[in-house]
Amino acid sequence: MTTPRRIKIKGRPQPDNVLVVGSVAYDSIITPHAQGEKILGGSASYACLAASYFTSPHIVGVVGHDFHDRDRKKLARRGIDLSGLQTDESGRTFAWRGRYHENFNRRDTEDLQLNVFERFNPVLSETQKKTPYVMLGNIRPELQLSVLDQLESPRFVLADTIDIWIETKRELLAAVMRRADLLVINDTESAKLTGETNVILAGRHLRTHGCRTVIIKKGEHGAVLFHEEGLFTTPAYPVTELRDPTGAGDSFAGALIGYLAATGTHDFATLRQAMIYGTAVASLTVEDFSTDRLAKAGCSEIKNRRKEILKMSKA
Amino acid sequence: MTTPRRIKIKGRPQPDNVLVVGSVAYDSIITPHAQGEKILGGSASYACLAASYFTSPHIVGVVGHDFHDRDRKKLARRGIDLSGLQTDESGRTFAWRGRYHENFNRRDTEDLQLNVFERFNPVLSETQKKTPYVMLGNIRPELQLSVLDQLESPRFVLADTIDIWIETKRELLAAVMRRADLLVINDTESAKLTGETNVILAGRHLRTHGCRTVIIKKGEHGAVLFHEEGLFTTPAYPVTELRDPTGAGDSFAGALIGYLAATGTHDFATLRQAMIYGTAVASLTVEDFSTDRLAKAGCSEIKNRRKEILKMSKA
Repeated sequence: MTTPRRIKIKGRPQPDNVLVVGSVAYDSIITPHAQGEKILGGSASYACLAASYFTSPHIVGVVGHDFHDRDRKKLARRGIDLSGLQTDESGRTFAWRGRYHENFNRRDTEDLQLNVFERFNPVLSETQKKTPYVMLGNIRPELQLSVLDQLESPRFVLADTIDIWIETKRELLAAVMRRADLLVINDTESAKLTGETNVILAGRHLRTHGCRTVIIKKGEHGAVLFHEEGLFTTPAYPVTELRDPTGAGDSFAGALIGYLAATGTHDFATLRQAMIYGTAVASLTVEDFSTDRLAKAGCSEIKNRRKEILKMSKA
Repeated sequence: MTTPRRIKIKGRPQPDNVLVVGSVAYDSIITPHAQGEKILGGSASYACLAASYFTSPHIVGVVGHDFHDRDRKKLARRGIDLSGLQTDESGRTFAWRGRYHENFNRRDTEDLQLNVFERFNPVLSETQKKTPYVMLGNIRPELQLSVLDQLESPRFVLADTIDIWIETKRELLAAVMRRADLLVINDTESAKLTGETNVILAGRHLRTHGCRTVIIKKGEHGAVLFHEEGLFTTPAYPVTELRDPTGAGDSFAGALIGYLAATGTHDFATLRQAMIYGTAVASLTVEDFSTDRLAKAGCSEIKNRRKEILKMSKA
């Protein structure tokens, strides 16, 4: 197989490896304008495809007997290592059905079938244990901790989470946050986690309560990085053809960790650049259903959007 | 009287003049934490004080017999020319009573007495007619048009508006928008004006419907400039001690027009810088009730905030 096209980093012929642990799902999505039935989704799918523009990510997840070969190929075609994608023949793939309301500002879960994901237990191979860059998708905090325990000496760990774990597993989540290098959450989650609706206060609160570095995503208003060296804000890319916002956050995080692995660094300056790339990649995801647009995006399209974002935030 | 301290622009010993037409009011404000009774407010008061850090603005407005000498002095102390501030002895000053709700994300008008403002008719002096930089505060569109008719050859006109004129005087407002160089409104107003809640679409819509240049303010999410040369976004200053948001938008616009007058230019690059200064000045306004913090802010405080904003948006 030929290596898929990747964005090259000057002076770094070979990117470092990325491990992404998360969900692989079949989504059924209804928006005010259209709908998609049983389409590839899940945090790990989006994050790996996004990261694949910078490195060859290893996916760790589980699918059921109904998982299509075409979806496996879709991931493999972007150079994603599927050796960590378990197939549990005893059940079906995690399935989610959601509906977005007018203006996409609210979504309701209409149905959720964990299926084989309920018994998911990530066991890393010897190679995977040595991966330097790791993204812990929004799986149960116990599983995130189990992955952290298996990793030998990760250089950088990004952790995501989701409302339900904030509500039900706060202590375990706090343990994850203390051990991760970067927490990436959205503004609803940061408000729930800290009680602060002001994003600036929420981010500062998280940094003084165990998180080294925090990114709070604000959808169409961009994202804010809280780092020991300062604040950094990035606007969203000016998307005007929003079709399906699902996976935008995972694409952002996936591209971000992919870029860090490609550069081999994770200082303040690199994180800022990584956020711009994350923003560019996420803007592609939302322009079509599922991972279609993301899987087909070219490197030059991503680089052009990065340039546009830089230009529109340059005083 | 000594000239108050102003922010100097390299190579421009003397700033151009600014004319601000708008309301001068006594506000009574209740926030979740505190309240202020009959405190100086109104779009022209905030805008002139903000502009006074860059030039000596001329205020055009009306007050009643109850207007305090101390408030006149507060404005004069910042070098604001009060010859256009009419006193109508037949009534009281425009009075507004508003209440902010938890997190300041909503405010209700509890009482509004137009008083002498109802009969306000801005008549410009010969000097005022020649002012190159003009801000039309959110007064009735007929009055904004009357001011435009009186101006001899303004170099740059900034127009603001408010919900009620969008609802009741759309045609007249459209005429103002066509004649102004820059429209500065907030995201609620742009949605009402265009039917587009997506800020990017709303801004583009306005530009294709008669506005040369548009700025849409998004509160804690910053502001977006729509210019023929491109988009520009600025984050908000990370205010953590919000006490009273009243006047933030007028302070932003006032500092913006003041900066343009100080530089004597209004190209894309200058507008971007002006927005950063506007953001810095507005962030001071909201840290205390009324115009107190704004009137007392030092030039170095404004310059420091400008630097911080530049730093936090620099990738």
